[in-house]
Amino acid sequence: MHMTRVKAAVAGASGYAGGEVLRLLLGHPGVEIGAVTGASNAGQPLGALQPHLVPLADRVLEETTLEVLAGHDVVFLALPHGESGAIARQLGDDVVVVDCGADFRLTDEAVWQRFYGSSYAGSWPYGLPELPGQRDLLRGATRIAVPGCYPTVSTLALAPAVAAGIVEADDLVVVAASGTSGAGKAAKPHLLGSEVMGSVSAYGVGGVHRHTPEIVQNLSGLTDAEVKVSFTPLLVPMPRGILATASASTHVDAAQARAAYEKAYADEPFVHLLPEGQWPQTKSVVGSNAVHLQVTVDEAAGRLVAVGAVDNLAKGTGGAAVQCMNLALGLDESTGLSSVGLAP
Amino acid sequence: MHMTRVKAAVAGASGYAGGEVLRLLLGHPGVEIGAVTGASNAGQPLGALQPHLVPLADRVLEETTLEVLAGHDVVFLALPHGESGAIARQLGDDVVVVDCGADFRLTDEAVWQRFYGSSYAGSWPYGLPELPGQRDLLRGATRIAVPGCYPTVSTLALAPAVAAGIVEADDLVVVAASGTSGAGKAAKPHLLGSEVMGSVSAYGVGGVHRHTPEIVQNLSGLTDAEVKVSFTPLLVPMPRGILATASASTHVDAAQARAAYEKAYADEPFVHLLPEGQWPQTKSVVGSNAVHLQVTVDEAAGRLVAVGAVDNLAKGTGGAAVQCMNLALGLDESTGLSSVGLAP
Amino acid sequence: MHMTRVKAAVAGASGYAGGEVLRLLLGHPGVEIGAVTGASNAGQPLGALQPHLVPLADRVLEETTLEVLAGHDVVFLALPHGESGAIARQLGDDVVVVDCGADFRLTDEAVWQRFYGSSYAGSWPYGLPELPGQRDLLRGATRIAVPGCYPTVSTLALAPAVAAGIVEADDLVVVAASGTSGAGKAAKPHLLGSEVMGSVSAYGVGGVHRHTPEIVQNLSGLTDAEVKVSFTPLLVPMPRGILATASASTHVDAAQARAAYEKAYADEPFVHLLPEGQWPQTKSVVGSNAVHLQVTVDEAAGRLVAVGAVDNLAKGTGGAAVQCMNLALGLDESTGLSSVGLAP
Amino acid sequence: MHMTRVKAAVAGASGYAGGEVLRLLLGHPGVEIGAVTGASNAGQPLGALQPHLVPLADRVLEETTLEVLAGHDVVFLALPHGESGAIARQLGDDVVVVDCGADFRLTDEAVWQRFYGSSYAGSWPYGLPELPGQRDLLRGATRIAVPGCYPTVSTLALAPAVAAGIVEADDLVVVAASGTSGAGKAAKPHLLGSEVMGSVSAYGVGGVHRHTPEIVQNLSGLTDAEVKVSFTPLLVPMPRGILATASASTHVDAAQARAAYEKAYADEPFVHLLPEGQWPQTKSVVGSNAVHLQVTVDEAAGRLVAVGAVDNLAKGTGGAAVQCMNLALGLDESTGLSSVGLAP
Repeated sequence: MHMTRVKAAVAGASGYAGGEVLRLLLGHPGVEIGAVTGASNAGQPLGALQPHLVPLADRVLEETTLEVLAGHDVVFLALPHGESGAIARQLGDDVVVVDCGADFRLTDEAVWQRFYGSSYAGSWPYGLPELPGQRDLLRGATRIAVPGCYPTVSTLALAPAVAAGIVEADDLVVVAASGTSGAGKAAKPHLLGSEVMGSVSAYGVGGVHRHTPEIVQNLSGLTDAEVKVSFTPLLVPMPRGILATASASTHVDAAQARAAYEKAYADEPFVHLLPEGQWPQTKSVVGSNAVHLQVTVDEAAGRLVAVGAVDNLAKGTGGAAVQCMNLALGLDESTGLSSVGLAP
Repeated sequence: MHMTRVKAAVAGASGYAGGEVLRLLLGHPGVEIGAVTGASNAGQPLGALQPHLVPLADRVLEETTLEVLAGHDVVFLALPHGESGAIARQLGDDVVVVDCGADFRLTDEAVWQRFYGSSYAGSWPYGLPELPGQRDLLRGATRIAVPGCYPTVSTLALAPAVAAGIVEADDLVVVAASGTSGAGKAAKPHLLGSEVMGSVSAYGVGGVHRHTPEIVQNLSGLTDAEVKVSFTPLLVPMPRGILATASASTHVDAAQARAAYEKAYADEPFVHLLPEGQWPQTKSVVGSNAVHLQVTVDEAAGRLVAVGAVDNLAKGTGGAAVQCMNLALGLDESTGLSSVGLAP
Repeated sequence: MHMTRVKAAVAGASGYAGGEVLRLLLGHPGVEIGAVTGASNAGQPLGALQPHLVPLADRVLEETTLEVLAGHDVVFLALPHGESGAIARQLGDDVVVVDCGADFRLTDEAVWQRFYGSSYAGSWPYGLPELPGQRDLLRGATRIAVPGCYPTVSTLALAPAVAAGIVEADDLVVVAASGTSGAGKAAKPHLLGSEVMGSVSAYGVGGVHRHTPEIVQNLSGLTDAEVKVSFTPLLVPMPRGILATASASTHVDAAQARAAYEKAYADEPFVHLLPEGQWPQTKSVVGSNAVHLQVTVDEAAGRLVAVGAVDNLAKGTGGAAVQCMNLALGLDESTGLSSVGLAP
Repeated sequence: MHMTRVKAAVAGASGYAGGEVLRLLLGHPGVEIGAVTGASNAGQPLGALQPHLVPLADRVLEETTLEVLAGHDVVFLALPHGESGAIARQLGDDVVVVDCGADFRLTDEAVWQRFYGSSYAGSWPYGLPELPGQRDLLRGATRIAVPGCYPTVSTLALAPAVAAGIVEADDLVVVAASGTSGAGKAAKPHLLGSEVMGSVSAYGVGGVHRHTPEIVQNLSGLTDAEVKVSFTPLLVPMPRGILATASASTHVDAAQARAAYEKAYADEPFVHLLPEGQWPQTKSVVGSNAVHLQVTVDEAAGRLVAVGAVDNLAKGTGGAAVQCMNLALGLDESTGLSSVGLAP
């Protein structure tokens, strides 16, 4: 494996997204890990913050500055929302910048303002290569916005149906159950183990979750019809994984629905339409870049129902980031990534 | 508390539903626990099977026969589907029989056949006193069919909206996340701790889950409109609790929706509409007979979204059984029941 | 139940210990709940902080001041370590003060200094009525120090053996696995659900955990021999419960060991020595005041091994507090308490 | 990576151990996966049984027969205890046979009889290369017995202390908390998710667990002193991982203890003595072949305390199997293995 190694920095290396990028880069034959940076944790060894990353245990977190990040071929940003823009602007156009945050995902400034309420930074190529036509935009790109975790699985669960016009696009309902790592590593009382274990809760109900407009944006790109999505996220007692249950009014039958999904994902390396009758579980995709999908039609209710599972940190964040980096650098898209999950 | 005690038997005392009935009866001032019966476990002490029921540890499970069950004022049946009918027919009309199974829930024989595929036993008064008019049917009844756990919370989450005509009844979508005890105590590989911990999965997708027609039946009783429900159950990694996320097309706003729910449940002892902005979590209701609800309207998506939480074994099964027994016996409906959950 | 009700205040009502005291008092026929107080949460409704306590949802947390706490028959203190003394000194001698914190547990000032490093407040009657002779000290007491959760179960698991002189008291080893609520509700990164789910960790290893001297103190009161305890706490992924595995060198056999435990706990209402061969599990005691114990002897290793389970918040804190209040007030010791756990 | 690939079969591919071997082999550059076999599951596609192994989804399980297993360079046996011997005897001496079961671990027939009660099959080179001198015995071996999961971590946690003679070898106490996958995939009621979630339990207490003599055997090889081990396993609510807390009487101090461990494991690729003050957690090693260790001395109690963490399925079974295969084949010992865990 005599691959020339690119040098990659990870900004925000003490958080869950940054840790996952590092975990994957440690297994990537074409990447040498350069600077790792933090904010309040700068100065601490990574071993104290991410003890699972044994080979990096003695690396010390540096400050997230231009000086530290300069001189890398690739910079991964895993920062709080709103902080990516300033740094990205200072990095040269030849540096591949992959942003795991939300700053450059939305193409509509007004929508950004409504959901984030801060100044709009613009938009970058959206890192979901499985969307029709999107892969080509990512090849050779030097700025990439990694999708949100919920939008990744929600979009992939509905895209074939919306694109094929077999569902009413203004009647989409998604209920997505996520593990707690999606909420990040900042200590908040409602995310304590004592609170989340043994409990399921809903939050951000009624269209107010920030991932809602991202799902709408993705699906709107696939149809001329108006897209409306009712999106409800659930917090469930597990560290990783999202299971999205998506449905929409339809007049097709289960076989027609399945055919649309088979066609859409036939050549995708990471999207696996399960055998008929087998439904996704998050355990199968944990730690991997795989997306497991299944679809059927409830004829009595008149709805197509699709269920998708991803690891919110892997394909939902860090895996997508690496996948996009591969495309940006012209590497094989799957380099350093796996579709094998860690079960049980 | 000089209440005359009735004598109650529990058939199927080694399972989760039977155990929960016993747990609640141990705290009920008006009940003396009589026979406890099992099938393959007959002959074993309850302490070996339900070690949390310390006061009953030395009780030995008897066979589930007419002789054993005779001589009780109340008989709780917590048996596998299909076994309640034969026993109930042999018990006198003066005995209050409360069936925790599905046998007598559905009023339409054809629907029963389609979903259960066995001979139809008939229907009994349906034990959901919170449905309009239903409480009166349960007072003094001697045969009561306890609702399924999913139908309890799904129905209560949607009933005010359907009854008030503020949603399109043929466009109901319910995704309900349940703890594993809903699947019972029979050992099956997919219910092993190793399989369910760290994982969320969907099952019975596409309208095939047996609780679907029960939800449709309940809601159809509240409207002249055709009721269609897309119901998807999820298995989540916790022992107890269900969180149902229900939605439907609407033209009302959030305040109107809330008003309908406030009105519907104003006098219900166990249904708690949470303060605005506070969303249900199952942890708050575990061990209790409480139902926590919240409702809003997503105006962009045009959907009313209601979320409800119950303990599937308590209000979802054993608590409802005791609540119904109280009504049947003319006791205060809340006797021996609590709206205080066990958290954290 | 025409019991005259005493009026009880709970200081620190927004935390786990305070919440548990309230949960139990809601089911206590002899107590009326008076003031509930908080620190940074003062002014908030309890429903926002402890949503499982539905009957108290509209109660507003007051400041923890003498004025607020005055006028109650009983005051429960569930405060951070070091804060109980100042308040207790201001409360009249006729007020029963039950402290759930550590301030008054240790009888040796030097030991307090070594483990807590703050000024010593003194010691109060120690609220473990199951210790020989201790119950009498608690009857009618007006100041009671509730034991720590680990010391409760560790002490009860070893006391009969130490008291009977059938083990070498300077060779005690306890490894106790606790749910996360024992660490409290303050948000710390290592207590996040994402961190604790799917993981077991050791902490406070090497005798540095503050509960170590409390265990030593308790057992030293039962023997003239020197007591040494190697105590290691583990954090396990569940909200409630402690399972302590205790062992010590012995020359007796399993039957002799069992006889000592049977004799010691024959009349205890909450301590249950399980049938031979049945080992404790925390699930059986969750939500209850029960202690489940089992003991055997490993003859090849020459050690007596005892295992005990309690709910750290119930018998380990709030249940013990109510049990002690009952003794202080001359009520039946079990009033408002149950030995029935919530399983599964 | 132009490695010549050996062809490996996995017998018992539908269980947890077999699945883990396959998961690791999928990432091994020197192995081609040949036959996969099952018992009652023969004829089923692996995708239905191990859905996380996407690249093998269409592989059909064959019967576990000599014909099926013949023609492979390596055969992994992940079979119920007692079944490995008959198959191994039929396989040629040139085939590398790695047994994940217990059949060939114990060197003393009488001990085997006492703990397993079946006919003794003999013993093979024991697959724990981290034991002094053991690595050389595994290089080029064609029959290897993979250690039990508990013995792996218990032995490694105590070996440096026993070998250095700094603890009393007849006073060893190990309490080890394991995730549920260690109990296998056979459906048993006490392993249901409903039973294990929210609960910790002890089992096999008093020296009766079958891994006890294996620990004694391992440590006895390091000292002339008599070795006695009190071993208590705990079942904790997580799928993977073991945390072993081991202690023994000592007269050395913490620095001396640490020095012994540093020396013992300085050159081990997978054993990581954590920085002082940092204690192991299972989450850090999940999915990896790493062993995390820490040691200290409790001077008040006079005991050395060592804590170790492994993934019971990885380094505890499948990872060790691959590590041993690498040694047997003369490959780099770490090929296809990682010390990077999957967290959070």
